[in-house]
Amino acid sequence: MKKQAKAVILLSGGMDSCVTLALAHQNEHKLYALHLNYGQLTEKRELKSFKEICKHYNIPSSQRLIIDVSHFKQIGSNALTDKSIPLNKSGKIDTKVPTSYVPFRNAHILSIAVSWAEVIKASKIYIGAVQEDSSGYPDCTAYFLRLFQRAANAGTKPETKLTIAAPLLHLSKTEIVQEGIKLKAPLHLTYSCYESNEVPCQKCDSCVLRAKGFKNAKVKDPILSN
Amino acid sequence: MKKQAKAVILLSGGMDSCVTLALAHQNEHKLYALHLNYGQLTEKRELKSFKEICKHYNIPSSQRLIIDVSHFKQIGSNALTDKSIPLNKSGKIDTKVPTSYVPFRNAHILSIAVSWAEVIKASKIYIGAVQEDSSGYPDCTAYFLRLFQRAANAGTKPETKLTIAAPLLHLSKTEIVQEGIKLKAPLHLTYSCYESNEVPCQKCDSCVLRAKGFKNAKVKDPILSN
Repeated sequence: MKKQAKAVILLSGGMDSCVTLALAHQNEHKLYALHLNYGQLTEKRELKSFKEICKHYNIPSSQRLIIDVSHFKQIGSNALTDKSIPLNKSGKIDTKVPTSYVPFRNAHILSIAVSWAEVIKASKIYIGAVQEDSSGYPDCTAYFLRLFQRAANAGTKPETKLTIAAPLLHLSKTEIVQEGIKLKAPLHLTYSCYESNEVPCQKCDSCVLRAKGFKNAKVKDPILSN
Repeated sequence: MKKQAKAVILLSGGMDSCVTLALAHQNEHKLYALHLNYGQLTEKRELKSFKEICKHYNIPSSQRLIIDVSHFKQIGSNALTDKSIPLNKSGKIDTKVPTSYVPFRNAHILSIAVSWAEVIKASKIYIGAVQEDSSGYPDCTAYFLRLFQRAANAGTKPETKLTIAAPLLHLSKTEIVQEGIKLKAPLHLTYSCYESNEVPCQKCDSCVLRAKGFKNAKVKDPILSN
């Protein structure tokens, strides 16, 4: 039997990371799922989705890593962890860098993924970053990810060779929904809302983008009742 | 009065970071000191040095940030946080990547510095990384730092422009001691040992390099009695 290449997958529990995991699964990687709690308003709900998605793909505990990152809250200045900063809830996507932007968040997340990848000798890191049709985060661009990959290979042991894959980067939300359905990804287990731990608010940027994706794909979102 | 440019200084409490702070002070920056607890064996002792050095330079609490990073311990595989992995205590510096290497540590530390710098609108980050005459960490090279700086500017807001300065990078330990004395840096407040919270073990790589620096500079290390 061919030895499976190990891959670290950043799995927030949202739709994008779930479809990314489904793609890594299709590529026959040995899957290592990484989840971050960083004091986001929906921390508990996202963790629940993470666990259920891991279970769906038979990822054992030894291949899961849940990290508590308290410092996003300490550094502050974003609406996902600081209740005093309002989230955009106009129902329309802002074209500027939004208040939900956590300064340089993906660099922190990717640094953790790189460290873990180096320890377990994984060769690939999957991240569900979306550049097109997204919220305009500067750390979700192909340019940033390419530079970070170069920094990662420069800053680790000579024998560590890592590729950072962002297979959804240029897909629209509609295409992500379609890809998820094609791959039989468990979209019913995912959660995307920034605001509420109970039911999706359907007003925040993340809910609005998700709804648009399902609508254009002419598919009902399985997490919404009615 | 000319407005001072803000700078974030990574201040572990060791000699290198103290001399780096002294240089930033000389450059008339408004100083923001960042310290990380990451479960290292000498966590408490280093924090004490951090506080005393901040006090020496009149850096108020509002310009200090102490971050607890628990995940280096969770990811494991290094001798600074994992007692089951032996530190090199031969008294000689190994030429390979040593067991004290925390996988990709500087990327984590710099990511935190970049996020904080973006929030407070600092334009410069000072890190006391030393490439020459050091312990052979891959994330302490000019090449890595240059690539990380590019990634940092790509992954933050368009208006954020950051320079990562590593003024000690090509200095020997001897030159660092000499620079510290020239700048009147409070070397007596610093602590460099990897192993012991009480008195420097004088056997670990960090103690050995420090001792060599003072010896060659023909200066007595103020933290050693007798």
